[in-house]
Amino acid sequence: MIAAKVIDSIWSTRKADSLIGLKFMLIEVLGGIDAGRIMIAADTIGAGIGERVLVCNGSSARKMFDREDIPIDSAIVGIIDEDCTF
Amino acid sequence: MIAAKVIDSIWSTRKADSLIGLKFMLIEVLGGIDAGRIMIAADTIGAGIGERVLVCNGSSARKMFDREDIPIDSAIVGIIDEDCTF
Amino acid sequence: MIAAKVIDSIWSTRKADSLIGLKFMLIEVLGGIDAGRIMIAADTIGAGIGERVLVCNGSSARKMFDREDIPIDSAIVGIIDEDCTF
Amino acid sequence: MIAAKVIDSIWSTRKADSLIGLKFMLIEVLGGIDAGRIMIAADTIGAGIGERVLVCNGSSARKMFDREDIPIDSAIVGIIDEDCTF
Amino acid sequence: MIAAKVIDSIWSTRKADSLIGLKFMLIEVLGGIDAGRIMIAADTIGAGIGERVLVCNGSSARKMFDREDIPIDSAIVGIIDEDCTF
Repeated sequence: MIAAKVIDSIWSTRKADSLIGLKFMLIEVLGGIDAGRIMIAADTIGAGIGERVLVCNGSSARKMFDREDIPIDSAIVGIIDEDCTF
Repeated sequence: MIAAKVIDSIWSTRKADSLIGLKFMLIEVLGGIDAGRIMIAADTIGAGIGERVLVCNGSSARKMFDREDIPIDSAIVGIIDEDCTF
Repeated sequence: MIAAKVIDSIWSTRKADSLIGLKFMLIEVLGGIDAGRIMIAADTIGAGIGERVLVCNGSSARKMFDREDIPIDSAIVGIIDEDCTF
Repeated sequence: MIAAKVIDSIWSTRKADSLIGLKFMLIEVLGGIDAGRIMIAADTIGAGIGERVLVCNGSSARKMFDREDIPIDSAIVGIIDEDCTF
Repeated sequence: MIAAKVIDSIWSTRKADSLIGLKFMLIEVLGGIDAGRIMIAADTIGAGIGERVLVCNGSSARKMFDREDIPIDSAIVGIIDEDCTF
């Protein structure tokens, strides 16, 4: 997983039917040589803008959803505790 | 997923049989340290040149198609709303 | 796999139900042009901070767990012997 | 997928039994910040040295073969038309 | 796949049970902008230090093993012929 900061919401009206109702967040990777990488992750946890999150990428990201046939390769899987410094 | 801009169409006459009829688009990654990365994504959404799109990579990209046995690792899954600024 | 050094623990109280009870470690990639890359890996081996570990990424990381439906893309799979110099 | 140029053939006499009979090509990624990346892709399309090709990576690359149990993570899936400029 | 040079053996006494008996090699990517990337690959081919090898990454690497439930994301799948220049 990667640690990232939630930057903004992303809105897409025209999208795959299987993505309807999902929330997408723009995230920025935190720490190390990947700092500043921008990705878009689906969020089912309820992360807020500015929060630090754990993001899972690749096929494992699909495990956050009830259905396996979903074109998602990045999902927020947790919110990093505020008092966790790194 | 990544945010990208559609740059051009890609034409390939000699290709795998399972890819016949698919539309391929040259895309450029937007934002962050990956900005300027060039990829080719299959498009079933009907994205136009110049539009900003959501692109899903890896095995999850195959979920955009009716058949699972397709050698595709990148697919446009949504079009980012024009009034979505980031 | 990659070689990495365990830097710290990561705490996430609000997370996917399937991740409850798992330990997450902040790791830093060792060696080569990826040195300094920061990732977060699940740990079932019992790696300590400062130890050098073998980390498996992608779908294969899920093979470290009893259940396949887990949103994990990075796991510590071994601890590199102290007298192994590289 | 990525766009790449076929640079050379790669010969490997000692290899996994499941790879016997396959053709491997050295390819160089074209365009963007990944330009100059070198990879080795299996070729079942019959791409010639110097041709521009579409390359599929990851698990999807295995979909180019009759058998699923093949240790291949990169395959040429199409040849880009000569008059396709990008 | 990638072309890499075998640099050294990696020893890990404390590791996942499913990895017992496997040989791990430190490899360095050859050629292009990834030259100098360091990875650790499982070896069932018998590659020697200094040899150039074909390395398969991701889920496809698991296809080198009799069992599918193995946390391996990188495997040596062939040894590049000595007279193969690139």
